[in-house]
Amino acid sequence: MGKLSRAELGQRLRLYVLTDSRAAAGRPLVDLVAAALEGGATAIQLREKVLGGRQQVELGRVLRRLTRAAGALLIVNDRVDIAYAVEADGVHLGQDDLPPSVARAILGSDAIIGGSAGNLDELARSVAEGVDYLGVGPVYATTTKPDAGEPIGPAGLAQLRARTDLPIVGIGAVTADNVGEVIAAGADGAAVIGAVIGAEDVRAAARRLRQAIEEALRARTAM
Amino acid sequence: MGKLSRAELGQRLRLYVLTDSRAAAGRPLVDLVAAALEGGATAIQLREKVLGGRQQVELGRVLRRLTRAAGALLIVNDRVDIAYAVEADGVHLGQDDLPPSVARAILGSDAIIGGSAGNLDELARSVAEGVDYLGVGPVYATTTKPDAGEPIGPAGLAQLRARTDLPIVGIGAVTADNVGEVIAAGADGAAVIGAVIGAEDVRAAARRLRQAIEEALRARTAM
Repeated sequence: MGKLSRAELGQRLRLYVLTDSRAAAGRPLVDLVAAALEGGATAIQLREKVLGGRQQVELGRVLRRLTRAAGALLIVNDRVDIAYAVEADGVHLGQDDLPPSVARAILGSDAIIGGSAGNLDELARSVAEGVDYLGVGPVYATTTKPDAGEPIGPAGLAQLRARTDLPIVGIGAVTADNVGEVIAAGADGAAVIGAVIGAEDVRAAARRLRQAIEEALRARTAM
Repeated sequence: MGKLSRAELGQRLRLYVLTDSRAAAGRPLVDLVAAALEGGATAIQLREKVLGGRQQVELGRVLRRLTRAAGALLIVNDRVDIAYAVEADGVHLGQDDLPPSVARAILGSDAIIGGSAGNLDELARSVAEGVDYLGVGPVYATTTKPDAGEPIGPAGLAQLRARTDLPIVGIGAVTADNVGEVIAAGADGAAVIGAVIGAEDVRAAARRLRQAIEEALRARTAM
């Protein structure tokens, strides 16, 4: 699709839903992702800590068809080889994951490479390494990722926002009730796990979040 | 280096040492690999279940220098992206790992791609998928890999040996004391974890194993 501009990428990351077979609580992940896309998710991240590589490729290829049909991005967490295999739009690399240069070499220059930053040092390293967007957080206290640091709050997100022009998504216990603060703090979008994939009605949960994000963006623009 | 012939690859897989930071028991893995190479290891597999991708790349690049200097192969377990990043000679893919076609696409046609087989069905699938060698086992009962199946014994290895011309390494609690049986059953080499990396004197352990393998090969040829 050619390299996206920063503004385009920010738009494509409005509601970024991370998959997690644990949060799916036994329901078929493919169905939940389809419901999330119907509800307005603009990007899906395959983030799978349990399945082997072969099963991840099978799942990822189904998600690729769903996301392509919905005009949504597909990003793979951590595994550049799986991103390549499923023709994902890119890969998300945490601070402990492969260096972005490796992803760029395997996936090509148009691939979307995301990084994670919870403080200024991590932001500086990620920017220097050439990531295309940043997952910033945890904004709020999360139980999904036990090794995440202390919550930085919307104020912490705003501080990091001031240091880079890259698209930023806020992550960490973001819900429809608090996403307005996240957007007001300068995020381009929100990344969520439990708030969508863990919801009883995944489509409705995605729709509520997407609406709250769009409202907060309009409010921010109007200010 | 160009694609190795089957005979050449069999020779390069004589003593195939798998790294495991757990078996290293706190000692620096790089030192243990260096000692294993001095003792006669012909191939090293980076098989790391604990470290993140970034640290695996750092470790793998050191192992690449060591193996290149020793004329030994470097194979990465499971992670094709890490194999690419460290310029490994190839990748080892278990039955649950990525399909060999993905590895071939990322690493190129000369890359060495290994598969695992514990029975005729797995062997047939691996051969059909185009692997270059097979790790066959567990030959003996192992505690290192709790999800490994029932031991197949040297007789089971011989059965699989009869079904393929690919190089085979026997794996699963192989030691200097029983490796003679493994080679006599038709293996080209032996893959070991604990017997080398877990030994108190890694170099001596590798040397004893290599000698036992070479003796058994001479005995087999003389028969």
